[in-house]
Amino acid sequence: MTRGAITRVPGFQAVGVACGLKASGNKDLALILADSPCRAAATFTQNAFQAAPVLYDRALLKRTGGQNLRAVLINAGNANACTGEQGDQDTAQMAQWAEASLGLPPDSVFIMSTGVIGAPLPMDKIRAGIEAASAGLSITPEAGHSAAEAIMTTDLLPKEALVKVDIDGRTVSIGGIAKGSGMIHPNMATMLATLVTDAHLTPADLNAALRQAVERSFNRISVDGDTSTNDTVLLLASGRAQAEPLAGRELAAFSTALQDVCIRLAKMIARDGEGATKLLEITVSGAVSEAEAAQAAATIATSPLVKTAFFGNDPNWGRIVAAVGRSGATVEPHRTALAIRAGQLEVALVAEGQPLSFDAAALSSAMAMALDVFINVDLGLGEAQATYWTCDFSYQYVEINAEYHT
Amino acid sequence: MTRGAITRVPGFQAVGVACGLKASGNKDLALILADSPCRAAATFTQNAFQAAPVLYDRALLKRTGGQNLRAVLINAGNANACTGEQGDQDTAQMAQWAEASLGLPPDSVFIMSTGVIGAPLPMDKIRAGIEAASAGLSITPEAGHSAAEAIMTTDLLPKEALVKVDIDGRTVSIGGIAKGSGMIHPNMATMLATLVTDAHLTPADLNAALRQAVERSFNRISVDGDTSTNDTVLLLASGRAQAEPLAGRELAAFSTALQDVCIRLAKMIARDGEGATKLLEITVSGAVSEAEAAQAAATIATSPLVKTAFFGNDPNWGRIVAAVGRSGATVEPHRTALAIRAGQLEVALVAEGQPLSFDAAALSSAMAMALDVFINVDLGLGEAQATYWTCDFSYQYVEINAEYHT
Repeated sequence: MTRGAITRVPGFQAVGVACGLKASGNKDLALILADSPCRAAATFTQNAFQAAPVLYDRALLKRTGGQNLRAVLINAGNANACTGEQGDQDTAQMAQWAEASLGLPPDSVFIMSTGVIGAPLPMDKIRAGIEAASAGLSITPEAGHSAAEAIMTTDLLPKEALVKVDIDGRTVSIGGIAKGSGMIHPNMATMLATLVTDAHLTPADLNAALRQAVERSFNRISVDGDTSTNDTVLLLASGRAQAEPLAGRELAAFSTALQDVCIRLAKMIARDGEGATKLLEITVSGAVSEAEAAQAAATIATSPLVKTAFFGNDPNWGRIVAAVGRSGATVEPHRTALAIRAGQLEVALVAEGQPLSFDAAALSSAMAMALDVFINVDLGLGEAQATYWTCDFSYQYVEINAEYHT
Repeated sequence: MTRGAITRVPGFQAVGVACGLKASGNKDLALILADSPCRAAATFTQNAFQAAPVLYDRALLKRTGGQNLRAVLINAGNANACTGEQGDQDTAQMAQWAEASLGLPPDSVFIMSTGVIGAPLPMDKIRAGIEAASAGLSITPEAGHSAAEAIMTTDLLPKEALVKVDIDGRTVSIGGIAKGSGMIHPNMATMLATLVTDAHLTPADLNAALRQAVERSFNRISVDGDTSTNDTVLLLASGRAQAEPLAGRELAAFSTALQDVCIRLAKMIARDGEGATKLLEITVSGAVSEAEAAQAAATIATSPLVKTAFFGNDPNWGRIVAAVGRSGATVEPHRTALAIRAGQLEVALVAEGQPLSFDAAALSSAMAMALDVFINVDLGLGEAQATYWTCDFSYQYVEINAEYHT
């Protein structure tokens, strides 16, 4: 059961409420509360334009050393980005209201925002929402699920993932929620994820585990190649599952589980890409380094030519090969191989850099039926590999992005 | 008059003929001949997968030191890429046939190809085409124009540009033809340009002038961010306009004129982008270096979010700002300004990193009427600037690229 993932982790309550930020009247404010002080780690957008909540969370992590954090407050419908000093003040105010409402000390609440850029937050609505959320917190799966719903913007589906892993005889839980489906609807932007766990890790290990998991999950999806002003992935660890911080093999088991949760959420985002009809999983193997494998996979995943071809169920190997060739990864054309898998059908299209004959109609039919299509490129040079996820590029993508007006 | 640009340069003949490479029966083989030996310079695709003619031309330039070149033979409809050793042999054969047919010594003919990837060249058709082209060469404008037509693939219009500049009392002519409208129709790919001039330059100056002109023109356009296996820009200089190589101010005047020809051709390619409804000219100024200005402009120009917004006539400043922010260029958000110009209307949208109020409906109407829309970003940090050209991203782009099947 992943529904209500975040409250299925022992020691965490959550809720999603509607406070009027979304014109639809849908839930738009999520609150997640840990029963006890947590260690925290986070990764943020690399965009030079960083929204007020991103700046606030960065500073909070620094001030606290990532210790004694208790809650996360997330609003959807307004990104509080490009809002100047007023935006900074509003974010700090949100944190203070949440801390007061929850009876927490200062510097214990993270803030995230997603939605329209450049508009001031309607603080009266936010204040009422915080009161309602504080009163509504619960450990029920439905409450956890409502938090996942509240952070959606143009997402078609809420995104939740849960992994329970047995580490040295004790169960460790990692639950997460995420939102994102392209940077969209003039800036109903952003990829946000909040992960909670009861595992016990040192601050350094918590950071390292999150960074690696994000690198291999959220940093390997693309809907349209854009990154937003608000992207944030936050991990809260209560440490209640163990007396001592995880180390060695146990730490490795946790890291693998965390990566699993992140990959599940990342794939949900890619699949929910604007206008998407299918998920594309692109694996580049045989590279000289993981970085180069990721670079080649990313270039394929962000090529409009590749993405439109897959919307058209066209196994267009030439576009894939051309993307690999311009990616900057080390390539020796005569060693390159390419295969596509859709459903039960796996077809080799290129070997030693040259096209093979294949049944294009059969492969195209299989692609049309499949929800997941796998592109496997083997550079034939080394042992490194990387996987990247994206979606196809449809008429609906253009419609969503051209017909909305600021 | 730019029609027949290439034969309006004294000392150059050209022709385009149909030899059956295009299913449409349209002209598909162009031949350009200089009356006397030329110096040559060229730039090629950076893609690791390089087509046979690219490899051939690179080697030819090396063997000859860029001296004593006489002709260029270009076929459209088949890219001779990913064709292995047979492709290399076929390219060499094309050059030999052209040299024999024109009575030229070995190593005097460049070869370019554009079209489908991975299919062997139908050499019987090519041979007959070379004979017909050799017999049809002419100095008339119509002959020059027919060469521009023969190199088209999915281009809607032939692309020609001509500049005549007075240098120290003698007229120097620079004429060029180009093709390209996205890397498309499963690999009816490629940007090709051939430039001819009667100017006299040293080999080093010829190279430097071409490299700078290409950097500021063909390297600053994007239809869909893809680069092909065949991209080539070639410049032939007969030297007949001067007794001595150009130097100093005269050389600078030539370089400026060459850049002008290249920018005109590059803008034609961007405007003819698949499905384009308008040309976007993106200038980033106030950057700390020209490289960073170009990087920021390129990031805007390749953002599907920006390109779909402009198709929808939506002056979506948030997407532009977000693209600048992730470009890697040095940015201080509170110094960034943004304006959009369409027709007679120029509107400031962002100042000091924050949105200004503006008449969005009026600007949108002006954008809908304009064939050219100008995006001006001022980073407010330095003196450097760069301009990039692209087109908007329409339903028709998706249609062209999804509905064609390999």
